[in-house]
Amino acid sequence: MPDTRIADVRVTPIAFADPPLLNNAGCHQPFALRSIIEVETGDGTVGLGESYGSQPVLKALARVTPHLTGLDVTDLNGLAARCRTHVTGAMDAYTGGERLLPRVIAAIEVACWDAYGKATGRRVCDLLGGQVRQTVPFSAYLFYKFGQHADGTPPDDWGEALTPEGLVEQAARMKALHGFDAIKLKAGVFEPEEEIEGLRALRDTFPEAPLRIDPNGGWSVETTLKLSPQLDGLVEYLEDPTVGIEGNARVQAATDTPLATNMYVVHESHLPPNMARDAFRVILSDHHYWGGLRASRELARICEIWGLGLSMHSNSHLGISLAAMTHLAAATPNLTYDCDTHYPWQSDEVIEGGKLAFTGGCLAVPEGPGLGVTLDRAELARLHRQYLACGITLRDDATEMKKHRPDWSFARPKF
Amino acid sequence: MPDTRIADVRVTPIAFADPPLLNNAGCHQPFALRSIIEVETGDGTVGLGESYGSQPVLKALARVTPHLTGLDVTDLNGLAARCRTHVTGAMDAYTGGERLLPRVIAAIEVACWDAYGKATGRRVCDLLGGQVRQTVPFSAYLFYKFGQHADGTPPDDWGEALTPEGLVEQAARMKALHGFDAIKLKAGVFEPEEEIEGLRALRDTFPEAPLRIDPNGGWSVETTLKLSPQLDGLVEYLEDPTVGIEGNARVQAATDTPLATNMYVVHESHLPPNMARDAFRVILSDHHYWGGLRASRELARICEIWGLGLSMHSNSHLGISLAAMTHLAAATPNLTYDCDTHYPWQSDEVIEGGKLAFTGGCLAVPEGPGLGVTLDRAELARLHRQYLACGITLRDDATEMKKHRPDWSFARPKF
Repeated sequence: MPDTRIADVRVTPIAFADPPLLNNAGCHQPFALRSIIEVETGDGTVGLGESYGSQPVLKALARVTPHLTGLDVTDLNGLAARCRTHVTGAMDAYTGGERLLPRVIAAIEVACWDAYGKATGRRVCDLLGGQVRQTVPFSAYLFYKFGQHADGTPPDDWGEALTPEGLVEQAARMKALHGFDAIKLKAGVFEPEEEIEGLRALRDTFPEAPLRIDPNGGWSVETTLKLSPQLDGLVEYLEDPTVGIEGNARVQAATDTPLATNMYVVHESHLPPNMARDAFRVILSDHHYWGGLRASRELARICEIWGLGLSMHSNSHLGISLAAMTHLAAATPNLTYDCDTHYPWQSDEVIEGGKLAFTGGCLAVPEGPGLGVTLDRAELARLHRQYLACGITLRDDATEMKKHRPDWSFARPKF
Repeated sequence: MPDTRIADVRVTPIAFADPPLLNNAGCHQPFALRSIIEVETGDGTVGLGESYGSQPVLKALARVTPHLTGLDVTDLNGLAARCRTHVTGAMDAYTGGERLLPRVIAAIEVACWDAYGKATGRRVCDLLGGQVRQTVPFSAYLFYKFGQHADGTPPDDWGEALTPEGLVEQAARMKALHGFDAIKLKAGVFEPEEEIEGLRALRDTFPEAPLRIDPNGGWSVETTLKLSPQLDGLVEYLEDPTVGIEGNARVQAATDTPLATNMYVVHESHLPPNMARDAFRVILSDHHYWGGLRASRELARICEIWGLGLSMHSNSHLGISLAAMTHLAAATPNLTYDCDTHYPWQSDEVIEGGKLAFTGGCLAVPEGPGLGVTLDRAELARLHRQYLACGITLRDDATEMKKHRPDWSFARPKF
């Protein structure tokens, strides 16, 4: 039996180039942050994880990792207990204290699964209960975007997209490159009617594509109630139209279009009130903040039992996260909607062999044991230097937006 | 990597001696039925499971097992899918169709975990997420009982227990033999006031022992509402006092004593209505009917998230079931009450080394990989011959009771 006890845990913060994508909170900065986690076991196996790279998460990981030595990579209960003991009180605007713990557990847990799989010759999807689909479908994730960052970074090759025509062009390119079926529009940026006009243009051009819109809580209850008849039949789900469980429950009571969320049911404590109020009928799960792959399988079961739909949320991420999402989705029977991913927006990569490739909008489970991906150490070093050089330590879309539009101000709901 | 694909599945029905224990449904027959499941993998590893031995379960297992060849023992999603395909329509009085499928999955799933553990040198509790307690506490399970079976089988050495004094004597012996702390009384047999008198006698004799009473749905809502003030402060929980989620919700609304159940929340479809109605605040889980060890871990998480208490239900069983319960409980952080077990009532055994021994009311996780128990093939053969000889193919407590008390009739609620 291989020695699967943890001998060392390394966390490397990285930054990778990110386009000026818009959302209700502002505009993406020139670099997105991430942490790369390496769990090395007694027999020298290295398991990989990828998580948030913001300061509070890095600090919490730094507090926890010295205390993991000797823990078996299968001892997820022990991992949770040690994280609970050593993550104390850290907060930031994005991740409240309650939300930090499952993020820290998840960051390490994925690397534990990978190490366990690599040490025993098994794929993570097999360890999670068995593969139920050969490939995992993802959606085209459209963003309103500027043509260029405010700091003068050379423009990316996607160009500006601030109109219905720009969205259609973006969708066409996204579909041509990757073959995605469903299309999701990140909204909450412009007047809702304008964004719905964008959806209609997408519907006209791609009559068969399932559509989604995500205002990120940017609409008031009243606005949403007024607009939702226009969305009925147009979208497969309406994501976080307004703020909170109560507000969205009022909307859900008035429409048959299911509401989806990755904002207001993001922690286990939100599940009972959501079920009691029938606020959201689709959970966009995310193993990075739900506590890892095991917790996400448990969340999937809860969705199955309560009759909720299930898909996957994404933040800006690289290939280790994508591989983990793919293994998880491959082992989840009740994945009812194509997963979201920001992956096509990223050009940098940290795994050997470069970017994972979608075929017909789907990703095959990477071959080989564990997650099936290995670290490109030269790229890791380069992206770490980029992290040190870029000076960003917290995601701050609002400040970035003000560089483009000095009069812009954040509000949620805004419209 | 060992070949952990299923090469063969064997199911052996057995019968073991069972005392004339009373409950709301009648009296235990002279023999209790069980099935012993052996999952053999490509590398010759044999994993063990123990489940129900009634005809419908045996028939369903016989339908499924020929279709399991080639399935990896880690492929629990595949196991569930194949069971779903091949278990069709079988029913009996105890196990409706909806309830049969998770029973069949569970019977095989435990043997898969055991095979996987044995093939890879890991204990089942480690594979389930890691050991969180060194030993698992069990309760003393008291029954009203006759001194002897109606068929003239020689009397067991526990003697008759039909009065408060008989219960106290039984509890004293149970505690002396095994060291149990909590005491549970199987009730719903006599007038409720008489049974509560028994509880008071237990309280007088064992002032520190947590007490429980389980009328098995034998009391009406009105009776329960009238009696529950007498139980407040006397019992740690009140188990299935009356029939159904609605009836018990009316009781729970009127008392702070938590209601527990192993009768009305016994399938995933019962969880949403239970949570919506706040009927039961303690789930007595049972991996044999909840779909196995993974499903039971998921159930435990649901209890944790919704703030419900959790313990374990038991039927008459032998050591493979007890080992599986112990591994599961050892890997379940939120086990909030000592587990139930009928084990002290059984003298027969099917594992090598004979009966597992309680120390201070607790059981240590059996040593060694998998479940840590191996089959005593001579005893298996003897208990299988006993199965063939006894002529029992269905549990039928009611008919057995009428042999003792011809005027007895079943009713639920009865009082």
